[in-house]
Amino acid sequence: MELRNDPLLGRSVIVAPGRAARPHAFAPQSIADADPDCPFCPGSEHTTPGELLAFREVGSLPNSPGWRVRVVPNKYPAIARNDVVPNDEISGDTSICEPDCVQPAYGAHEVIIESQRHVEGLTGLSDDEAAEVFIAYQQRLQAAKADDRLRYATIFKNVGPSAGASLAHTHSQLMAMSSVPRSAQAELDRARDYFDRNGRCAFCDLIERERKAGVRIVEETDELLVLCPYVSRLPLEMCLLPRKHSAQFEQISAESLAHLAHVLRSALTRLEAVLGRVAYNYIIVTSPFDTLSTGHYHWRIEVLPRLTTMAGFEWGSGCYINPVPPEEAAAMLRRRQLAASFRR
Amino acid sequence: MELRNDPLLGRSVIVAPGRAARPHAFAPQSIADADPDCPFCPGSEHTTPGELLAFREVGSLPNSPGWRVRVVPNKYPAIARNDVVPNDEISGDTSICEPDCVQPAYGAHEVIIESQRHVEGLTGLSDDEAAEVFIAYQQRLQAAKADDRLRYATIFKNVGPSAGASLAHTHSQLMAMSSVPRSAQAELDRARDYFDRNGRCAFCDLIERERKAGVRIVEETDELLVLCPYVSRLPLEMCLLPRKHSAQFEQISAESLAHLAHVLRSALTRLEAVLGRVAYNYIIVTSPFDTLSTGHYHWRIEVLPRLTTMAGFEWGSGCYINPVPPEEAAAMLRRRQLAASFRR
Repeated sequence: MELRNDPLLGRSVIVAPGRAARPHAFAPQSIADADPDCPFCPGSEHTTPGELLAFREVGSLPNSPGWRVRVVPNKYPAIARNDVVPNDEISGDTSICEPDCVQPAYGAHEVIIESQRHVEGLTGLSDDEAAEVFIAYQQRLQAAKADDRLRYATIFKNVGPSAGASLAHTHSQLMAMSSVPRSAQAELDRARDYFDRNGRCAFCDLIERERKAGVRIVEETDELLVLCPYVSRLPLEMCLLPRKHSAQFEQISAESLAHLAHVLRSALTRLEAVLGRVAYNYIIVTSPFDTLSTGHYHWRIEVLPRLTTMAGFEWGSGCYINPVPPEEAAAMLRRRQLAASFRR
Repeated sequence: MELRNDPLLGRSVIVAPGRAARPHAFAPQSIADADPDCPFCPGSEHTTPGELLAFREVGSLPNSPGWRVRVVPNKYPAIARNDVVPNDEISGDTSICEPDCVQPAYGAHEVIIESQRHVEGLTGLSDDEAAEVFIAYQQRLQAAKADDRLRYATIFKNVGPSAGASLAHTHSQLMAMSSVPRSAQAELDRARDYFDRNGRCAFCDLIERERKAGVRIVEETDELLVLCPYVSRLPLEMCLLPRKHSAQFEQISAESLAHLAHVLRSALTRLEAVLGRVAYNYIIVTSPFDTLSTGHYHWRIEVLPRLTTMAGFEWGSGCYINPVPPEEAAAMLRRRQLAASFRR
């Protein structure tokens, strides 16, 4: 067993391969079957809020069938463009808090419906279809950035109930906020600090080091690197990074977007080859909108298979227990098959 | 909706009551039924590693029936007292890392079996039985502290599969490590910083402020306060704190331990009155063993009902979405019933 600390991302993980022998420790959780009343299937456009963006067949009308990708506000938003003045009476005396301890949760919460077909993830789409999804991601991020009050946004995908998905039909979500969450800001501060001390981007250095070590690389192209992070919190966790320094996902070219969609699909296809149908999340992590100098940060996509459950230890200590060393995970993903030691 | 930041604990939460209307957003997850082959029931003592501590009937033999509380090493440990030298070849060039980036995961992982009876949690025990469990907690923490190589320990309980429990029979776990995990250390540093700036314990100040505000208090005794934290990450999250400054759980008196067991049982009984059988974790958070001055820190117990699933947004941003304002949660827990707005 090893304790691995990531000083940049502020993570601690115990790599404990013996735990994989524990009953149910490494059990892919099946994901939901199709919902006959799916609100994201064509013909149900009226059941969602009105569309913000759609890539459509010529002649088709908004909020009707004929779309390939469709973006709508989340019907049950976690955040909205409403001003709610925090209730000081409820907050009580906030003298312990910094000025931004409480604020109205101004923001946007959107759903990107990725296909008319009731498929479950990016692997159910073609490369061309996936590329159009990434164009939608970028356009919605740019739209959020155009709102001066929004500073931070992320795009994420939940596949399977145990990954937080309430609907099976392939979709992603955008959340944009007027401030940067605490732990995201702490990561940005550490990246800035590394840059100030070393004059280089910490993620660029990481990429160089990982390419030299080789053992955690899953896939590499001229533009992109997919690896299992040295401090992987979860079994078969992957991270996709642009090899060339790039801090803002919303600024990459259309060609790079199409290539990215292809490589992410390929990584997810590897994941499914190893584990079968599996619940997972992916998250696009990119610079806050108001970042003026961007030498210190690097956008990335994190892929998080949900094979394990966060228990009391992880909640209490912030330390994760990972039964699959990332070096073994990368080897399995490269070979597209589960290692014999994990077969049951 | 409000965005609430906790500068001390480094947490951000969007309080989004509208989300509770979302299908399945607030669904208590049922917990497993009894396992006929339970390894923690009397008669199965030989199926666990040999006991480290047991409170027994006079004349009963170690590793045989006759115990009331029994502590054994975890059969599938996440950490152990083995030295494993990190493999430099696998780590590759760790020049980006600080000196403690990787280290052998030296530590202890123990299971506290809390009753001979196959019940599911502290609420299935009497006050006297629960008090004995807390004596076992304290003795095992003291035993870990006696090992000079151990610096950090936590005791936690997982109830229900969705809270990470693989066995239903009531039990808790102790994890002790030779270093403090990153995010736990960051919290300690912030508490130290607050103390240096203000000359007071941040948690003592919090207790004073919360008692004045009143709206988040669930239960209060001469010694203890149970509240729903202002920045609650989860619906009906609770925090139990000693009202008088106390940094080290392992040093509190036997009388205080018995009172604590009673108050925690009462808080969990309230939780079950509101939600029925529910998956949850609780975690004892206390000072690292080698803390010399303890003016800045305060032990606590966090109670985390597992009604929601961590999805991509939470993983990516570190920001939680909580559909139940802690003020409403505290009111429901005080009244021991679900508010009409959450009934389905």
